[in-house]
Amino acid sequence: MKGFKSFKLIDQVKEDLFKNIKSLSSEKIDTKESFGRILANDIISPVNIPHFSRSAMDGYAIKAEDTFGASQRNPKIFEIIDKVEINTTSNKEIEKNQAIEIPTGAPIPQEADAVIKLEDIKRIDNKIEVYFPVSPHKNVSLEGEDVKKGETIIKAGQIIRSQEITLLLACNILETKVVRKPKIAIITTGSELIEPGKTPKIGQIVETNSYTIASLCEVYGGKPLRFGIVEDNEFSLKKILDDTLKFDMIVFTGGSSVGERDLIPFVINENFDNQMLAHGISMRPGSPTAIFIVKDTPVFCLPGFPVATMISFEVFVGPTIRKMLNANILDPRPVIKAILTRQIPSQYGRRDFARVKLNYDPKIGKYLAEPVRISGSGIISSVVKAEGIIEVKEDLEGYEKNSEVDVKLYLPR
Amino acid sequence: MKGFKSFKLIDQVKEDLFKNIKSLSSEKIDTKESFGRILANDIISPVNIPHFSRSAMDGYAIKAEDTFGASQRNPKIFEIIDKVEINTTSNKEIEKNQAIEIPTGAPIPQEADAVIKLEDIKRIDNKIEVYFPVSPHKNVSLEGEDVKKGETIIKAGQIIRSQEITLLLACNILETKVVRKPKIAIITTGSELIEPGKTPKIGQIVETNSYTIASLCEVYGGKPLRFGIVEDNEFSLKKILDDTLKFDMIVFTGGSSVGERDLIPFVINENFDNQMLAHGISMRPGSPTAIFIVKDTPVFCLPGFPVATMISFEVFVGPTIRKMLNANILDPRPVIKAILTRQIPSQYGRRDFARVKLNYDPKIGKYLAEPVRISGSGIISSVVKAEGIIEVKEDLEGYEKNSEVDVKLYLPR
Repeated sequence: MKGFKSFKLIDQVKEDLFKNIKSLSSEKIDTKESFGRILANDIISPVNIPHFSRSAMDGYAIKAEDTFGASQRNPKIFEIIDKVEINTTSNKEIEKNQAIEIPTGAPIPQEADAVIKLEDIKRIDNKIEVYFPVSPHKNVSLEGEDVKKGETIIKAGQIIRSQEITLLLACNILETKVVRKPKIAIITTGSELIEPGKTPKIGQIVETNSYTIASLCEVYGGKPLRFGIVEDNEFSLKKILDDTLKFDMIVFTGGSSVGERDLIPFVINENFDNQMLAHGISMRPGSPTAIFIVKDTPVFCLPGFPVATMISFEVFVGPTIRKMLNANILDPRPVIKAILTRQIPSQYGRRDFARVKLNYDPKIGKYLAEPVRISGSGIISSVVKAEGIIEVKEDLEGYEKNSEVDVKLYLPR
Repeated sequence: MKGFKSFKLIDQVKEDLFKNIKSLSSEKIDTKESFGRILANDIISPVNIPHFSRSAMDGYAIKAEDTFGASQRNPKIFEIIDKVEINTTSNKEIEKNQAIEIPTGAPIPQEADAVIKLEDIKRIDNKIEVYFPVSPHKNVSLEGEDVKKGETIIKAGQIIRSQEITLLLACNILETKVVRKPKIAIITTGSELIEPGKTPKIGQIVETNSYTIASLCEVYGGKPLRFGIVEDNEFSLKKILDDTLKFDMIVFTGGSSVGERDLIPFVINENFDNQMLAHGISMRPGSPTAIFIVKDTPVFCLPGFPVATMISFEVFVGPTIRKMLNANILDPRPVIKAILTRQIPSQYGRRDFARVKLNYDPKIGKYLAEPVRISGSGIISSVVKAEGIIEVKEDLEGYEKNSEVDVKLYLPR
């Protein structure tokens, strides 16, 4: 049993890691089912939206020039020659000083170029009085005003939200090319572990990391498959690696420390062409993280302690998933500013991750971040109490009380 | 065709609305499948976590008092009498100046009360030299240190994130009571509308609002069911209301304005016991929103323009879903501070919603919010370009350039 030989810095590890990440292929899916997926290509609109000029108001379609000179004292009089409904067009042609009654959304009659609002006129029988001039295109949504045919409307790498679904469907794009979800094998090791539901004896603990990791994989856009608890011996580990190297990514949890149980790096080195990107990282929690590229597949060995697993996942695995997806945001957690209610001590040269609760203080219009008191990286309740996380970078020795700090919010909220 | 009689204020409408919202029943589901659901009850731990005192380090279990007085010059010598593995216990009893070799996570032997780290000793054959005193419980995770049996570990109303799944499973809670998802009927009206995939003629437009609303319902935790495009006549509207009043919520889109097509409020008033909470709201976009309580069921009539629908949904419908779920956060959108790059004009007495793009400026360490240029509430591309939204409250006439403003972020990112 020995300590790690050296601790690498997070940023260096991520740089090395991202150099080795290959983009995934894409797949066409039903646009209606595309929520939360990452767009594979730029989307170019095949149509104008709106695809005809339409009224933006309930009112009367007229020729704008016929209103020129109108005033309260000298209203212009228009004759109403027709009335269109929302989905109909008029077959009458507007001539000088004529108007067609029109509801919001209906197509503007051919010769008209403006709409005067219902509230702005006075109607007397089949005539209206107009009291002020309107300019051409007033109250008209012009064809292509929202989107022009041939225009790039959404860029590759965008996550598809409600508004992207709306726009894609409005363009009649029923199938959308998205990046396929990376398949992620989750493997747990540790002879002390038992599956949830079994009663642990002294010395045994309920295995939860694979479920934590599976749900985090989904948050970041991956497709997890749990392989359960694998025995901690060379044969079993080699076999599971052989079986899962066809996945886009492998995440081990447990067994990444430098104890006697630390077999995974050994098995990888003995049996596979690999590049070791890190084994021991200058961070807390999460330092016993190891990362390899084995035959093009990133293999992460996350620490066994639940909180360390979560944090190491969010630093390395999550952004790797988003990188594979070519997402334009690699870390989806929003960052807010908050004022620290207590100091956070940290060690120079190491990145520390402090879990915080948030309280909004309406008096100062800011969030207050209160570090959750903890005694170790095994404390699951500390992340349950937390709404976000503060990273204390390597060049700092902590944050003073009352500092303004960045808080990454846990999702979903 | 007439304007709205009066415009209500958003806060008043929400207050009236929330008074009429009943909580939903709960259901037991598999904890592993509970991600994103809202907890129905407080969770009380049935166990201690850890459920035995265990070593937090690779090292040697000893009695702390035997190290008292140890120094570099006068190391204390301990005899190693056994070695435990991760999931085993020793049947030997530690006596004075004896130690048992122990890995991280293994149960602390009965008589021991501290662990001295591997890195801190020197081993010579079956003896170790200890150079400084350790206090009791040093490097020991005590039974119940994370969670105590009987302790409330998660409060009702919490959304279940990865960490809640972890903690629930660690407590061996395999089934979790969550609030059932509200069933939401989505009904579209408008004779100009056609289903996506059909080619629109002049005057017709592709119906997208029901898909927008369906995806937003899921973001907020509801279970949407689309009823498609319903004909805009009294008979059809009465029938669809009869059919859907068994839902927890009904969302109409289109047909909420005060034009000739404004049949829904009329049909509701003529045929059903109801309470009209609003018909016309002082907001932009979204003013032609109507809200009713019909036989206990909230009925929302959202405006037909896509952006107005989205914004009105996020102001009223989304928080109503979360209120029904008893969620402790009614609006899941995170709020960040940003500096405005252009002024936003607004009208006193009305709440305006400005869509903004965000750019992080590393020089000032802040986000810059750039309003998206738009010409109407029909402009779908404006929300696609936006990463968030700024609310200009009723008591303001806008925001000056360079003001610091709150931006609600669109999700997911």
